[in-house]
Amino acid sequence: MGQRFLQLLNGHPWFEVVEVMASDQSAGRSYAEAVGSRWKLTTAIPDSVASLRVKGPRAPLRAHLLFSALDASVAGGLEEEYARAGHLVSSNARNHRMNPLVPLVIPEVNRDHMELLERQAYSNGGGLVTNPNCSAIVIAMALAPLHHSFGIEAAIATTFQATSGAGYPGVPSLDILGNVIPFVSGEEPKIESETLKILGRLGPKGVEAADFPVSALCHRVPVIDGHLVALIVKLGRRATEKEILAAWRSFRPLRKLELPSAPLDPIDARTEDDRPQPRLDVDRAGGMGLTVGRLRRCPVLDWKFEALGHNTIRGAAGAAILNAEILVRDGRA
Amino acid sequence: MGQRFLQLLNGHPWFEVVEVMASDQSAGRSYAEAVGSRWKLTTAIPDSVASLRVKGPRAPLRAHLLFSALDASVAGGLEEEYARAGHLVSSNARNHRMNPLVPLVIPEVNRDHMELLERQAYSNGGGLVTNPNCSAIVIAMALAPLHHSFGIEAAIATTFQATSGAGYPGVPSLDILGNVIPFVSGEEPKIESETLKILGRLGPKGVEAADFPVSALCHRVPVIDGHLVALIVKLGRRATEKEILAAWRSFRPLRKLELPSAPLDPIDARTEDDRPQPRLDVDRAGGMGLTVGRLRRCPVLDWKFEALGHNTIRGAAGAAILNAEILVRDGRA
Amino acid sequence: MGQRFLQLLNGHPWFEVVEVMASDQSAGRSYAEAVGSRWKLTTAIPDSVASLRVKGPRAPLRAHLLFSALDASVAGGLEEEYARAGHLVSSNARNHRMNPLVPLVIPEVNRDHMELLERQAYSNGGGLVTNPNCSAIVIAMALAPLHHSFGIEAAIATTFQATSGAGYPGVPSLDILGNVIPFVSGEEPKIESETLKILGRLGPKGVEAADFPVSALCHRVPVIDGHLVALIVKLGRRATEKEILAAWRSFRPLRKLELPSAPLDPIDARTEDDRPQPRLDVDRAGGMGLTVGRLRRCPVLDWKFEALGHNTIRGAAGAAILNAEILVRDGRA
Amino acid sequence: MGQRFLQLLNGHPWFEVVEVMASDQSAGRSYAEAVGSRWKLTTAIPDSVASLRVKGPRAPLRAHLLFSALDASVAGGLEEEYARAGHLVSSNARNHRMNPLVPLVIPEVNRDHMELLERQAYSNGGGLVTNPNCSAIVIAMALAPLHHSFGIEAAIATTFQATSGAGYPGVPSLDILGNVIPFVSGEEPKIESETLKILGRLGPKGVEAADFPVSALCHRVPVIDGHLVALIVKLGRRATEKEILAAWRSFRPLRKLELPSAPLDPIDARTEDDRPQPRLDVDRAGGMGLTVGRLRRCPVLDWKFEALGHNTIRGAAGAAILNAEILVRDGRA
Repeated sequence: MGQRFLQLLNGHPWFEVVEVMASDQSAGRSYAEAVGSRWKLTTAIPDSVASLRVKGPRAPLRAHLLFSALDASVAGGLEEEYARAGHLVSSNARNHRMNPLVPLVIPEVNRDHMELLERQAYSNGGGLVTNPNCSAIVIAMALAPLHHSFGIEAAIATTFQATSGAGYPGVPSLDILGNVIPFVSGEEPKIESETLKILGRLGPKGVEAADFPVSALCHRVPVIDGHLVALIVKLGRRATEKEILAAWRSFRPLRKLELPSAPLDPIDARTEDDRPQPRLDVDRAGGMGLTVGRLRRCPVLDWKFEALGHNTIRGAAGAAILNAEILVRDGRA
Repeated sequence: MGQRFLQLLNGHPWFEVVEVMASDQSAGRSYAEAVGSRWKLTTAIPDSVASLRVKGPRAPLRAHLLFSALDASVAGGLEEEYARAGHLVSSNARNHRMNPLVPLVIPEVNRDHMELLERQAYSNGGGLVTNPNCSAIVIAMALAPLHHSFGIEAAIATTFQATSGAGYPGVPSLDILGNVIPFVSGEEPKIESETLKILGRLGPKGVEAADFPVSALCHRVPVIDGHLVALIVKLGRRATEKEILAAWRSFRPLRKLELPSAPLDPIDARTEDDRPQPRLDVDRAGGMGLTVGRLRRCPVLDWKFEALGHNTIRGAAGAAILNAEILVRDGRA
Repeated sequence: MGQRFLQLLNGHPWFEVVEVMASDQSAGRSYAEAVGSRWKLTTAIPDSVASLRVKGPRAPLRAHLLFSALDASVAGGLEEEYARAGHLVSSNARNHRMNPLVPLVIPEVNRDHMELLERQAYSNGGGLVTNPNCSAIVIAMALAPLHHSFGIEAAIATTFQATSGAGYPGVPSLDILGNVIPFVSGEEPKIESETLKILGRLGPKGVEAADFPVSALCHRVPVIDGHLVALIVKLGRRATEKEILAAWRSFRPLRKLELPSAPLDPIDARTEDDRPQPRLDVDRAGGMGLTVGRLRRCPVLDWKFEALGHNTIRGAAGAAILNAEILVRDGRA
Repeated sequence: MGQRFLQLLNGHPWFEVVEVMASDQSAGRSYAEAVGSRWKLTTAIPDSVASLRVKGPRAPLRAHLLFSALDASVAGGLEEEYARAGHLVSSNARNHRMNPLVPLVIPEVNRDHMELLERQAYSNGGGLVTNPNCSAIVIAMALAPLHHSFGIEAAIATTFQATSGAGYPGVPSLDILGNVIPFVSGEEPKIESETLKILGRLGPKGVEAADFPVSALCHRVPVIDGHLVALIVKLGRRATEKEILAAWRSFRPLRKLELPSAPLDPIDARTEDDRPQPRLDVDRAGGMGLTVGRLRRCPVLDWKFEALGHNTIRGAAGAAILNAEILVRDGRA
């Protein structure tokens, strides 16, 4: 995931990568040496980053804003230490997501949750912000306009998840070539809880989660990039197909803010029979756009449809960067 | 699909392939010539079939029992003609499946529906029997023990369908390599209606469909053989995990009949985290076994789980052959 | 292939698409209607093209320069008709490639062959120019610097070809998922003859093909875009690894011409163990760059190495566009 | 690879698995526990093996005949220790393959090399036998009949290797989905040396390798099982297509020995345009059969063709078992 951060931050109009922190094994080497042949993106390592000397865990850092792609096994403590040291950490790690005082934010959906930063115990500008799990982002973004317009009373999400979500080396090819694995470790509970926190409201004790049941069924499929999700919803009030499409298409809350990573149209609602598809639609809006489609009535709940998002851009590195952008725009970073 | 019929009937202890009927273009050539390089199974064309002279549509046939893998564009009329001529047709085509007087049968589930044969208008031993759509078979078999034991009040099925289900040439590689297509033409209505007919009861006017809503969300994935289905059910009465597993595991209604194609254990209920998987489990019991697993509670309905079956064996040719076997055992063929 | 032309010509600084010709079935409809769901690129149909009314075969066209992605079954005659009518046709079809008076050109390699246009029988600015087969381009580009520097005495090319080369629907998924097909219809003779024509010289009777044996072994692999070729060469004189790398790296004959589609570095010669790879390297330089690597001595001939190019960009539509650009630069269009 | 051994030995008419040795981590647990979810074959763990208590390295073993699927990092020393202790070791590990006193055998090709056992320093029935690398077996088997009939003067082998050859977890899915990797670590030298030892002759100092150059170009492709090899040969004397096909088809040196794992027809020489293919042909003769095809003249050397074999059956576990069978038949085990 660190690779995506560096790729997306390369040439970013607001942010510049001035230092890189990684494990003790990598510390002291140039980034290019440290990553070696594990660089798996189709663009080259940005020149400005390749020669940066990698710092080790807990090394003092000079940037105020930090992006964390740390592994969950170490992210919890390290991120807190840096927040305590006065850094504002935009993290993609799962450790603090469900902490009621830590914002779990998709800027288009719950930008106001960033106010939690003011309630955190850190001083000197320190703070902790998180973005959701790669599947939860797709689901929460697709549901948000429906929740706001009609209320959601129940949601079921069956995922078709790309292998890049598991990192490198990640999923062995023997497990996934010509196959589907009906299991992604830890994923279903994350989706079921994070989605409700994102769609929740600020209350006196932090975020009050939205109050409807979410059920997730997670699967890994032989796709490199792009999480497709088959969604079914029960709505609080009747809605027509036209109203639902309109809710998605008019969902452009950040448009006037001119954030570098925010797509003009966060949600593209398509009406063909067979879209969205990962191969054709995953890179829409530089991987920051969500695509929904196949809206049709459900005999059990109310409506069923498909949603697709890029799991390592909109669902991870791009999400953390967009969170940082909204923090800047709102004067918090 | 005709290829699978010939492969599975090769060496069958009860049936022998004595003639093959195909389109006018193929008529008059040996089967081996007619199929040419379109034979796509990993076993060779059976010797006994390779040299059979292919007959054209409407050619008189001498076998009483016919297996139909005809394309739906012609199956409707041709199958009726042969039934009128005194043949008993076990068809994999969709055309007559929803006719209330035509049995739509999975022998383990609704063997009694074969009684409809006695109500059909054909004389001289003529008749029409069908097996369900390849996805509907997987779904109906997985649901049947639950419906019998606990009653089903709603079911949602999200499919991960193999490309062999679309025949040859079928799905273009550009559409499916590294991709998922959230659409299989005509599939969702078939699943939603056929499942209920299979789980229905014989009544005075034919089959009375089971009375609960079924919702299907169909997807094509880059898998050669094996339809995986993520299922969610609402049950008529409370059931524990143990009771559900027991319902599946004790579902062996044909065991004493010693049908050549019926597996000893039609349903294998597994308890690992990550099974069933198409690549590992599709060929269980010669492709006639269903595998279920990943049973867990659902926050929206009651239970969720996964089911897997071989789409061209249990889901098509093997299904039609098993139907013929039960007809023989029950003295109807 | 027509789709790639339209995608690459969208926003082209020199060329503008003003009309589209296709089959009689498509004629009269807007391009967007005519192509429908067969548009398989990850970018949308360019707006300026979507609404163009498609013309039928032999319709009068007003542009001087035509790009032909016609199917070989009709390209032969149609292209000649348009050349006779005064159009300059840059064709990706195979029909006229081996005609000794028709240039078969990779601008970096044999730009001078364009002089053949002056010997063609067409008047009023009419003419016919072709680009090589998608595999032959990769092979000829990789060999050209070696041929110029050291002379080539024999070359063997084993291909790993992407499925997009076969068009749409093209290769059935049942043939290629988890598989390799050791056959691409008509491909080996094309490679063996086109490579030698490209590396040949202008003579009194047209192009005199280079005089060394080329052997091609063609395979289709489950890759969407990017032809990888394992190459073995026998050289006319001794060369060191360093000299060969230098020959490739200094191969930049078009650099000063500032052609819109010509990469600054046509050949990227890499020295890692495991490059080039289709997934990582195919899009280098907008799909117009060739990547070579894995140079090592061969116990049978002299050297072995790998070459990779984008089969529908550098190997087809981009090739035809680059041919048109050099024609413009050289005052021929 | 140990898994394939156990699968293939299950129900073997001559051999019975009485004990299993693995690493210290596994020692003391039942085999089923030790392998856990890493069992990746489509058949279940054999019952007779599942409950065997795994022994640790150097544990005394009671069987005379041992099959070694040890990792090369430990196989060297351990196999020697067991040979010294009087065990006859049939090894799939690479460590001792090129030792001139250790037979490197494909029974159909160089059964006589087993005589080297008599020259080894082990007493009490101890000895060491190896089978070739998974690619080298395919290549040597395909070449052997040509070498015997016509003499080979040079051979070039470009491989398309399945991922199962790299074990589990082995090749990461991110590296191979929709991709080709032009590198398999250590593979090219193994092919180039092992092939010549296999085709060599017994001499006073052990095996004298055959004396012609072999060049290998190795690639990993997204295929689960089956190494396809594109081969080019220069022959010592002229041969017609008919003679070459006859050389392959008459190559049945073990036919009368009735070895359980030896196919009746070790080499199937096909004449279609597009065979062999991994998906269709890999399992011929239980994975022990080689399939060749696409024989055609080569403009550079003499002939080119394709060969395919199952890399973990004929190319590994099945190879070691067949070696043991020939040792039994020849009275050496």
